[in-house]
Amino acid sequence: MRLLGLGPQAVATDAMRALWTDHATLQTMLDVEAALARAGAEAGVVPPEAVPAIADACRAGLYDMDAIATGALRAGTPTIPVVAALTRQVRAADPAAAGWVHFGATSQDIADTALVLQLRRAVALVCQDAAPLLHALRALAERHAATPMLGRTLLQPGPPVTFGLKAAGWFAALQRGLDRLRAAADEALVLQFGGAVGTLAGLGADGMAVAEALAQVLDLKLPAAPWHTQRDRLAALASAAVVLGGSLGKIARDTGLMMQAEVMEVAEPGGAGRGGSSTMPHKRNPVASTVTLAVANRLPGLLAGLLAGMVQEHERATGGWQAEAAAQADIFLLLSGAVASQAEAIGGLRVDAAAMGDNIGRLRGLVLAERLLLRLAPVLGRDEAHGLVERLVAGAAAAGTTLRDVAAESPEVQAALGPGFGAALDALFDPAGYTGSAGTFIRRQLDGI
Amino acid sequence: MRLLGLGPQAVATDAMRALWTDHATLQTMLDVEAALARAGAEAGVVPPEAVPAIADACRAGLYDMDAIATGALRAGTPTIPVVAALTRQVRAADPAAAGWVHFGATSQDIADTALVLQLRRAVALVCQDAAPLLHALRALAERHAATPMLGRTLLQPGPPVTFGLKAAGWFAALQRGLDRLRAAADEALVLQFGGAVGTLAGLGADGMAVAEALAQVLDLKLPAAPWHTQRDRLAALASAAVVLGGSLGKIARDTGLMMQAEVMEVAEPGGAGRGGSSTMPHKRNPVASTVTLAVANRLPGLLAGLLAGMVQEHERATGGWQAEAAAQADIFLLLSGAVASQAEAIGGLRVDAAAMGDNIGRLRGLVLAERLLLRLAPVLGRDEAHGLVERLVAGAAAAGTTLRDVAAESPEVQAALGPGFGAALDALFDPAGYTGSAGTFIRRQLDGI
Amino acid sequence: MRLLGLGPQAVATDAMRALWTDHATLQTMLDVEAALARAGAEAGVVPPEAVPAIADACRAGLYDMDAIATGALRAGTPTIPVVAALTRQVRAADPAAAGWVHFGATSQDIADTALVLQLRRAVALVCQDAAPLLHALRALAERHAATPMLGRTLLQPGPPVTFGLKAAGWFAALQRGLDRLRAAADEALVLQFGGAVGTLAGLGADGMAVAEALAQVLDLKLPAAPWHTQRDRLAALASAAVVLGGSLGKIARDTGLMMQAEVMEVAEPGGAGRGGSSTMPHKRNPVASTVTLAVANRLPGLLAGLLAGMVQEHERATGGWQAEAAAQADIFLLLSGAVASQAEAIGGLRVDAAAMGDNIGRLRGLVLAERLLLRLAPVLGRDEAHGLVERLVAGAAAAGTTLRDVAAESPEVQAALGPGFGAALDALFDPAGYTGSAGTFIRRQLDGI
Amino acid sequence: MRLLGLGPQAVATDAMRALWTDHATLQTMLDVEAALARAGAEAGVVPPEAVPAIADACRAGLYDMDAIATGALRAGTPTIPVVAALTRQVRAADPAAAGWVHFGATSQDIADTALVLQLRRAVALVCQDAAPLLHALRALAERHAATPMLGRTLLQPGPPVTFGLKAAGWFAALQRGLDRLRAAADEALVLQFGGAVGTLAGLGADGMAVAEALAQVLDLKLPAAPWHTQRDRLAALASAAVVLGGSLGKIARDTGLMMQAEVMEVAEPGGAGRGGSSTMPHKRNPVASTVTLAVANRLPGLLAGLLAGMVQEHERATGGWQAEAAAQADIFLLLSGAVASQAEAIGGLRVDAAAMGDNIGRLRGLVLAERLLLRLAPVLGRDEAHGLVERLVAGAAAAGTTLRDVAAESPEVQAALGPGFGAALDALFDPAGYTGSAGTFIRRQLDGI
Repeated sequence: MRLLGLGPQAVATDAMRALWTDHATLQTMLDVEAALARAGAEAGVVPPEAVPAIADACRAGLYDMDAIATGALRAGTPTIPVVAALTRQVRAADPAAAGWVHFGATSQDIADTALVLQLRRAVALVCQDAAPLLHALRALAERHAATPMLGRTLLQPGPPVTFGLKAAGWFAALQRGLDRLRAAADEALVLQFGGAVGTLAGLGADGMAVAEALAQVLDLKLPAAPWHTQRDRLAALASAAVVLGGSLGKIARDTGLMMQAEVMEVAEPGGAGRGGSSTMPHKRNPVASTVTLAVANRLPGLLAGLLAGMVQEHERATGGWQAEAAAQADIFLLLSGAVASQAEAIGGLRVDAAAMGDNIGRLRGLVLAERLLLRLAPVLGRDEAHGLVERLVAGAAAAGTTLRDVAAESPEVQAALGPGFGAALDALFDPAGYTGSAGTFIRRQLDGI
Repeated sequence: MRLLGLGPQAVATDAMRALWTDHATLQTMLDVEAALARAGAEAGVVPPEAVPAIADACRAGLYDMDAIATGALRAGTPTIPVVAALTRQVRAADPAAAGWVHFGATSQDIADTALVLQLRRAVALVCQDAAPLLHALRALAERHAATPMLGRTLLQPGPPVTFGLKAAGWFAALQRGLDRLRAAADEALVLQFGGAVGTLAGLGADGMAVAEALAQVLDLKLPAAPWHTQRDRLAALASAAVVLGGSLGKIARDTGLMMQAEVMEVAEPGGAGRGGSSTMPHKRNPVASTVTLAVANRLPGLLAGLLAGMVQEHERATGGWQAEAAAQADIFLLLSGAVASQAEAIGGLRVDAAAMGDNIGRLRGLVLAERLLLRLAPVLGRDEAHGLVERLVAGAAAAGTTLRDVAAESPEVQAALGPGFGAALDALFDPAGYTGSAGTFIRRQLDGI
Repeated sequence: MRLLGLGPQAVATDAMRALWTDHATLQTMLDVEAALARAGAEAGVVPPEAVPAIADACRAGLYDMDAIATGALRAGTPTIPVVAALTRQVRAADPAAAGWVHFGATSQDIADTALVLQLRRAVALVCQDAAPLLHALRALAERHAATPMLGRTLLQPGPPVTFGLKAAGWFAALQRGLDRLRAAADEALVLQFGGAVGTLAGLGADGMAVAEALAQVLDLKLPAAPWHTQRDRLAALASAAVVLGGSLGKIARDTGLMMQAEVMEVAEPGGAGRGGSSTMPHKRNPVASTVTLAVANRLPGLLAGLLAGMVQEHERATGGWQAEAAAQADIFLLLSGAVASQAEAIGGLRVDAAAMGDNIGRLRGLVLAERLLLRLAPVLGRDEAHGLVERLVAGAAAAGTTLRDVAAESPEVQAALGPGFGAALDALFDPAGYTGSAGTFIRRQLDGI
Repeated sequence: MRLLGLGPQAVATDAMRALWTDHATLQTMLDVEAALARAGAEAGVVPPEAVPAIADACRAGLYDMDAIATGALRAGTPTIPVVAALTRQVRAADPAAAGWVHFGATSQDIADTALVLQLRRAVALVCQDAAPLLHALRALAERHAATPMLGRTLLQPGPPVTFGLKAAGWFAALQRGLDRLRAAADEALVLQFGGAVGTLAGLGADGMAVAEALAQVLDLKLPAAPWHTQRDRLAALASAAVVLGGSLGKIARDTGLMMQAEVMEVAEPGGAGRGGSSTMPHKRNPVASTVTLAVANRLPGLLAGLLAGMVQEHERATGGWQAEAAAQADIFLLLSGAVASQAEAIGGLRVDAAAMGDNIGRLRGLVLAERLLLRLAPVLGRDEAHGLVERLVAGAAAAGTTLRDVAAESPEVQAALGPGFGAALDALFDPAGYTGSAGTFIRRQLDGI
């Protein structure tokens, strides 16, 4: 469904999309079955001579995908038709080996471990695609550490910030989000192997040995126990992904607002088919911002379903479990699109520092009234200074001139600032001089303090 | 993604899945473009001789789907690459006609109207698939109007209901849900046609004429105005779909519980690959129930995203709109799966009326203590009757016998009920006699009062 | 929790807040108990002489709220401690009457019917508070039917719309939302009365008679059957409320964006404590917009919970039901705040039509390039006209002048438009002349076509 | 709203409820203001003599709560009326000190830091209340490490597990959830202090010094930078809370199902008002389970709103921020209720090991057919063994006897098992002998491997 607006399939990167196709899912399930046979052999449970026939049959291309999909719905899980088809395939080649297919496992072991393997790749892809984005954000933060722009609260102008500070905030949130994602993946992406009801009883005394071997073959950690109906780790992983998506949405919201024709402080990079317009050359659609906001719109609802689904019955759930895998896939499909689109947008972002300055200037110094007040208060007393600044502001508004010019003509201001009052006012009304600890905050965020 | 558990692609009916493929979406968009050309000609805006070349090019098979999908992501909407490709195709056949492709429309007009047409088919499919389910539920309600079973509150046994009453409740909720879905579709599924910013300015004085013609060609109602960023009608349609899904989930929850081995009052139909087990023939997995509960798990989150996305900017939104179409598709894919699986399950439901009776019987009449109390109160006074029944209940519990038998040996009961007390107690402890207005409630629900 | 940001308690109107206090809830439950006694008497089931003592005890002020709340949590429902306390109160006054308290009802009958009564008042409050908002929106739409402003798609400028068209879109969505809310309330707000398991068995043959009398006393419709675990109607009502909230959020999003200092086309009304600033008199915080967006943020998640909760077990649910009432209350608390804040904001909205014109003007006619093209195409042919306009646009961009002035100096344009080309260009570049069917769309929306 | 079903106010513990009252919120905000004055003095920015008057006025009882709440809605934030009232109060006592109230801070600094302080207490309460629950779960797991019960998959019976394994799974998920909650709190609960736009410009060169002092006074970590519109840490904290709630919901779902009259393997503790019934002494309502499931129903939607709200504009958001605090409060109110109710339920859980055995026994050995098959396969070959077991199962089903008895009469079985076949079958059909690695999995989970 790549043509239905900007849904999971539409926005995903090619690599992420490839990861979740039915072919890839089937192959991953077959990889788990092959690993299970090998592990069984290593643990002395499965005859070693059965392994080659099983491994050989574990190639997705051998199977009728439509029949498996149809069977999956009838059975309520894809593993049942997969194991049935795999067993037939093995039996044709080596009847004795067929009895060892899927030995000791339950359907959910295969489906969950395959999901874990797919999620491991998905997390790696996201982290990989995020690297250039992090790099670009860091570069923006450094390059524009001293570029003043309007601070905006409730979409209203306030005292200046620097564009570097804004970018550093984007950077640090993304960095934290990726750290959380990796930590959650590290906790969550563990082997699922418990047999019918999570006791590995079918393997008798060999359960742990097979489990350990299987974990090693698949390079997965062995958890304390099977977790068929304890989905907290996967839910926490999805949460981390969705929180990361929210931080990307924040970047997209800011850049989309800054691209408004009335603001025009930044622009996403152009290029063929990127939302330019021949009759409106001033126009640059915020395509990456739109993609990312579409992603941020979808993610919370996907997570809500996963979390609601944690309330699972006994040793295998009805519904809560089965709804999970496709939702996890959608989360990572969407996330990959947000990361990629922001990497492209931020990597090529055109920043108009002059426009940022102009947007401050258009407000005629009023966003710096606070600074004037702070300068006058120690001299005049806070109350008097406050009253004076209010009158000056009103005067500037009435005259349509700058607050600096009105202040320069005020005898009280002249007296307070002394002979060099003109230069003092010039300095006071230089927005670059009123960005406080912005530089420190940038450095601390880039340094990961 | 038909192998990732029971997600939208996995559970959907074939017909519903076919409705939302990229091919189907592209064809529907092209249908709208062809209709637009015809409508333009009818309104005298487009030269009639341009229509055939346009119509002829409006066949999805002519286009490179992957290129269009790639272009859709770059442009932020599929319409841009579709119109570009269509224009090239038309130009090759009839250069003069190429200028009339997409005339007067904006990208969103095409994407939204195509979505509306797809949703119209989706709603029709759901209603069609629900008809046999409604029929089966009605039949259950009628057949089992007098079949007593335990009423269960907070999963604890209470006085009896009838299975017909339960089925009638399922029926009536489904009926209401379908009525709501149809009403919402009737309101929502209207033409989208507004041009660049919703004024149809590009068509000058002919805007309304083209709009009316286009609505007629597509057999869609013409709304009061374009609704590019007013998505309330589509959100209300999705809400109706999700509420319907919740009612289906209720059926699945009940049947899943009734299929427990300890309860075993109903069973989903079996058949190849339907969750039977050769070594556990008593076992029948509630596959349809599981599918439906997986659907019910996903729907609320999809709707939450749609509703959050209603907060749209000005004349075209960034993100809120673009996230919508795939979510709508997922809602109907999921819903179709729930309807179909319940139609199959309820249509073939094995009802074990004897087991229902046994489950009442196992409680040794205690669920009818309330009835005994109501019978004794007018004779003995409420307080005395209450004390007596409590003692009898305790006696039955202590003796492990039925409350009826303990009551039969009680001199107070004998005195209160008179000489025929044995027969009176038999009648009092017949659960079929204590189902109150169940019959009336069944009839009223089936009659749609 | 009125100080924790802008949550349900913080934003609600006083009247709506009063509706959902524990005192109000308790009183409503007692109203239902009193009505039940009366209905029982009317149906000949309860002795008429028991009614006064019961009715007299049905005053919330008589009870220890904290004890009831504590008991409610222990019992899992407030009805149990309420009935216990009520019975004690009645017994003290009239021991014989005590036995008729709550006669024939189950806990959920009382809780649900009380909820229905509270929701009836809540819907009425919303509709009442929305009336002035509707009125103000209609007035804006009419007053500014011909006030041109930029159309904005993806937050980028496009051809003009009128502010009246935008306001009419807000109006029509709100109107539809209120219609949906009323219709859903009409369907949903019906009596709940089923006894222990929904059969009214405790009332023997008199169940329907009591139910009918109770419905009449409470002026509620009698549904086809009790609906303890069929919550579709209440879920549909909540959906309608949340969709309405989304439409209010759309208004808030638009006005918030239009209040940006760089846009400044509208301003919310000021007044004490309404977000003005003494040192920044140009600043007006979009408080109503913020309140409404905070509401729109919360509503979808509340609804998602309600919808997930529809999957209820048998005759009384564990959790799904009990989570519902507070969520319904939150929805209406929030909605009341959004309606009230928008009524205040829109009712006093300062519209700066000149600023709207200036914002078009600042783009130097480029948003009307499409119109020039449409005018030239019939004369020069579409392809030639397109090339010419592209060149003119590039010229205007390069020269920093208006497209009109560049066009006026173009020989091709002069030739195409003939001798009066100057006046023709003036007309072409008058944005008020390029709003297409905006007037029609306004009228149709105000007329509710 | 403690009487509206089981919402946040109804289920919360008294201590948690007290934490989020308006009085507590106001006091916490005042605590932050007092700390700010002290920190300013320590940093040499605020005259030390101003501190006492400010600190003295920072007592919630001094203020008119209703006026502040009304002002909060008008201003869009509670801080504005709080600071106004506080300043008036200070001015009355010490006019010179009034100018130093709130010095250097912005409204959001106070509101956010107060929220952080409240969340710190909330997390501590949850962890504290969870300790006895953890203890009780560990005790159950140890005590019932060898108590066999049915494994149940898709609500159907499977091979046995032990009740200890189930309890260990509950324990381990809860343990992980608490670890995640603490880790997220450790990351999230940091000072918010940035001034108007997050630069601390109003404090000139002293910004960091004041920030460090303030962090120290409040015993909060100092983050790399202010985070007014970067809410990822709070969102991650809320996610951890909601995941924990899901794990509690899983316990509640399991115990609720096990309390069914048809299963009756466990019972929540009784006691006055805990859902017992005098006429149905066998009945014990699963009140704690219901409370917890009601909580689990609400949490995901609350989180979805928080996550959607992360998409915040520039330096202060409109709506996304303001919706957050009440949602966070609701999450912890609900969570406290789930923890407390489960602590009570699990702490007093009545476990009926005999019933667990009976429920296995009622299935006549069929859930152990797999074990028989595994025993026979090495002797007879897998295919032959499979066919034999199928026939035996069919025979047992037909005869209504146990599989063991049917097997004991089978010559093939007798031959395969040899002379002591009777004892061998007894051992094979002892469910306690077929729980595989359950003991290992319990130990590993309790040891936190």
